[in-house]
Amino acid sequence: MMKYILFDIDDTLFPSSEFSTLARKNAINAMIGMGMLGDSGTLMARLAMIIEKKGSNYGRHFDDLCRQAGVKEPARYTAAAIAAYHDTKTAIQPFPKVPLTLLRLKEAGYRLYVATNGNAVKQWDKLIRLRLALYFDAVFVSEEMGRSKSPAFYRKVLKTLGARADECMMVGDREDADISPAKKVGITTVRVLAGKHSGVPTQADHTVKDISGLFRILEQL
Amino acid sequence: MMKYILFDIDDTLFPSSEFSTLARKNAINAMIGMGMLGDSGTLMARLAMIIEKKGSNYGRHFDDLCRQAGVKEPARYTAAAIAAYHDTKTAIQPFPKVPLTLLRLKEAGYRLYVATNGNAVKQWDKLIRLRLALYFDAVFVSEEMGRSKSPAFYRKVLKTLGARADECMMVGDREDADISPAKKVGITTVRVLAGKHSGVPTQADHTVKDISGLFRILEQL
Repeated sequence: MMKYILFDIDDTLFPSSEFSTLARKNAINAMIGMGMLGDSGTLMARLAMIIEKKGSNYGRHFDDLCRQAGVKEPARYTAAAIAAYHDTKTAIQPFPKVPLTLLRLKEAGYRLYVATNGNAVKQWDKLIRLRLALYFDAVFVSEEMGRSKSPAFYRKVLKTLGARADECMMVGDREDADISPAKKVGITTVRVLAGKHSGVPTQADHTVKDISGLFRILEQL
Repeated sequence: MMKYILFDIDDTLFPSSEFSTLARKNAINAMIGMGMLGDSGTLMARLAMIIEKKGSNYGRHFDDLCRQAGVKEPARYTAAAIAAYHDTKTAIQPFPKVPLTLLRLKEAGYRLYVATNGNAVKQWDKLIRLRLALYFDAVFVSEEMGRSKSPAFYRKVLKTLGARADECMMVGDREDADISPAKKVGITTVRVLAGKHSGVPTQADHTVKDISGLFRILEQL
């Protein structure tokens, strides 16, 4: 019997890709608002090149953009960009049906968990900003688990929960991190078709448009 | 003739001490909201001891508080604390009469500057959050000037502006950083009697309750 449901965070509980794009746009607009020369489109393209080159977890994208532009007061523009970027990131909202779905699943007696790649404080921050943290009985973050989402990661989750694979369901948008490795250890997998990876083919046991689709799947099991 | 007016930021343009206290309270309450055991008063006292011991620029106050409390999921509480702390810090508001005073001074033809100790991006962030950044013709931050507010700092400001000391006024709440060293190089000094240092005796040329008091002083010069 299904008892434990694991959720990914980004593009599963909230539109992460959309907010990232918006955060970058708002940051560029804030720089322009403080007097930076150049139009939004050109600066966005330059920023995209920096992100492409340095990776999205590199912490000094805006400093690099200022250096390229040769501005006289880099702190002026960097501070404006970071403030606007953070304001957007802290305004994240869950996909519309997520809070009520999680509440109904709790009412139905399921135990809910998060299984996510990334930095522990950053991932917790998202759950707190989304006002979803209290729904979850535990949060498994790759940083604390010592490995990213792989068969070994999911095996360790099962062991920690004292659960059998056939009592567990993993729900996420990423074939490589959420579906494929969870399926390998026998966990039932549900692919959420959202975000920038939604076109990737899937071997998931089920697919949903959003997590409210879980009720139909759970009824059929 | 007075032409250049320099302003400190913290407790001169906005109630910095008050917001710091509120930010800590909100952080502790957020930890409790996420399930941390202990009452607000006890946790505030423990946090104060950590800040006292490690200094206010130490970045891991909440991690230490979690370690002391021996909680099982430190990232849960640290993320909640940091989010609430930052939300408070980003909600800073200027002292009520500050924006209109700065606008009137600009209308009257004065050139306005900031002279502040600290990290450049952090101090710019405050000006941006306060929506005051655009009023200032330049911002002199100790980090970028290579020295904290001292006679040498103010001499360098005069040189950069191409100004004589008797054309300059420094406005701030701190006797040690704003008044004493500026007075030593011949700048007219105005002490704002606000914040936690307001009780310190002053040798400033003038004192004001808030910066709207500058008009009376400028008229008399």
